Amino acid sequence: METRRRLRIGVRVLLVGVMLAGLATPIAFRAQERGQDDLLASWRNGQAKTAILSFVQQVTDKSSSKYVMPEERIAAFDDGGTLSTEWPIHVNQMQMVYARQRVKAMAKRQPGWKYQEPFKFILDDEDEKLGRSLKNPWNMLDLLRAVNQSMTVDEFSSEVQAFLKTAKHPKFKVPFAEVAYKPMLELLALLRANDFKIYIVTNYGADFVRELSESVYGVPRDRVIGTTPEYEFKDGPEGGSLVRTKNLSGYNEKSAKAENIQLHIGRRPILVAGNADGDLAMMAMAAGGKRPFLNLLLHHDDSEREFAYVENSEKALQMAQSRGWTIVSMKNDFNVVFSFQKE
Amino acid sequence: METRRRLRIGVRVLLVGVMLAGLATPIAFRAQERGQDDLLASWRNGQAKTAILSFVQQVTDKSSSKYVMPEERIAAFDDGGTLSTEWPIHVNQMQMVYARQRVKAMAKRQPGWKYQEPFKFILDDEDEKLGRSLKNPWNMLDLLRAVNQSMTVDEFSSEVQAFLKTAKHPKFKVPFAEVAYKPMLELLALLRANDFKIYIVTNYGADFVRELSESVYGVPRDRVIGTTPEYEFKDGPEGGSLVRTKNLSGYNEKSAKAENIQLHIGRRPILVAGNADGDLAMMAMAAGGKRPFLNLLLHHDDSEREFAYVENSEKALQMAQSRGWTIVSMKNDFNVVFSFQKE
Repeated sequence: METRRRLRIGVRVLLVGVMLAGLATPIAFRAQERGQDDLLASWRNGQAKTAILSFVQQVTDKSSSKYVMPEERIAAFDDGGTLSTEWPIHVNQMQMVYARQRVKAMAKRQPGWKYQEPFKFILDDEDEKLGRSLKNPWNMLDLLRAVNQSMTVDEFSSEVQAFLKTAKHPKFKVPFAEVAYKPMLELLALLRANDFKIYIVTNYGADFVRELSESVYGVPRDRVIGTTPEYEFKDGPEGGSLVRTKNLSGYNEKSAKAENIQLHIGRRPILVAGNADGDLAMMAMAAGGKRPFLNLLLHHDDSEREFAYVENSEKALQMAQSRGWTIVSMKNDFNVVFSFQKE
Repeated sequence: METRRRLRIGVRVLLVGVMLAGLATPIAFRAQERGQDDLLASWRNGQAKTAILSFVQQVTDKSSSKYVMPEERIAAFDDGGTLSTEWPIHVNQMQMVYARQRVKAMAKRQPGWKYQEPFKFILDDEDEKLGRSLKNPWNMLDLLRAVNQSMTVDEFSSEVQAFLKTAKHPKFKVPFAEVAYKPMLELLALLRANDFKIYIVTNYGADFVRELSESVYGVPRDRVIGTTPEYEFKDGPEGGSLVRTKNLSGYNEKSAKAENIQLHIGRRPILVAGNADGDLAMMAMAAGGKRPFLNLLLHHDDSEREFAYVENSEKALQMAQSRGWTIVSMKNDFNVVFSFQKE
């Protein structure tokens, strides 16, 4: 199955390569003329890079039939697995590292956790059992609720800032601000230079990601769409504040990503980048519009520089092939994965 | 009661006026130097105009202790009654005019409406009874649901655009794009010139207001926060689409306005403009931050050029006085109310 899929991808790349051969020169020329391929220095030449440069060139060229007005140039990026590394989620994902740290800090006041999933696996550092336990959404919800614990949004912001200052990625041993994919940061810069509006659309907590979205991705807080708790307004003599309650207001994944794009943006994206089944609804929205679009699916096939896995991405890889969306091989299309690694 | 309140407002204006007399010259001078008071040509000199110019001057002056970084310059504006006229709501408000038109168009397929509140009052043009009926939130909800009727967001957008092209304000006989308050449009321009990010935070339908937010207010669609239905994602061979379901995902008023500002923006506003009790939670959020803030409460006291009413604003007027927020008298502070009226 896996081999056949790779084969099909290979054939597809070959076919698209042949189709693009005629176009390649003028596109490369135009892009070079504008210096835009320099912005993608960490991308190897190939189908993905060509697709990106060609798309950006067309939608920004007023004389092209594919021209898109700047206000319509909406780009939606998943975070974990698309902009930054997150695998394996229950061990290395930044919010999970935070949750584990917090559960351990709160454990004294919660004696029952010693006997309760998923908390007991965190307290005993039983990573594999934790991973299995969190596949049950009720256990994941229990964990999220425990970590959410009735803070104000200002308190939560300070706490996450403090965490990000000291925490390191368990495998790569660098701050979480540095586990963003270098080629994807370059892509964000390219899009910004071409007047795209970039949004992060993530299943992570919106308030968590906001604490590094501006400094790491150049994406302002109001363009981060994620999972949120229900907030509760409280007035007082010093003015109003907002408490993060234990209730989630919905999990921002799959259909919810498409629906929340309407809630927050009110426009279809024309560029979507994701890496998993949870990003397919966004991609379907881009594909369903009247404008040209580009869907990019990151394939985690690089066991040396990052990780190789297809879990939660099987359907996405299949659909990207059948609908002709662009698959980005991290192994072949990325010259370098992280800034801290040597090329 | 009404007279005593007016008296208290009068005394307050007088006191603030005296307090500001010492400041007035340098502020006016600095503002003039930068040409910014020219931008408020439809505002009469007075406490409100001085408060606005002084606030903008301070938060943009890097040498001031009140300086606020551009990314923190968040301004939240209510729409109906603050940016545009809406009184009396059940007769003149644009979305209500649309709802009435739509109920009449759909009535043939809904024979039961002849006997059912609030529909029967719309069909019979019984304005007063309709107004009373809609004070019952269940009736209002029934109306909103009927109008929401399972369209895709694209269909809804086209339909609202078509409505806005032909519809006229029942009293002023101009398109709804023209019933914005001229001084408030000038205020938006002043804030934009000073790198504020402007959001509309309205109890109206977000998707409705988005159809004129860019052209009338210069506010992009993604900066409109309003009441929304629950959206439902549907995938198909042509790509994805979103259906507006009959369920509302919450009514954007009072506490919800403060909570949705966190959901959408993730920052406290430093400037809030409103006109009613429903805007108080936003104002409390601005007041509860660590940064300087300006809360503007429009007082509808101009029966000649617009309307005079305090309904739904009693608490707001009281709180603005007790907390020292700025009350804008439409009668005294506005040189002109609408562009189509003579000065």
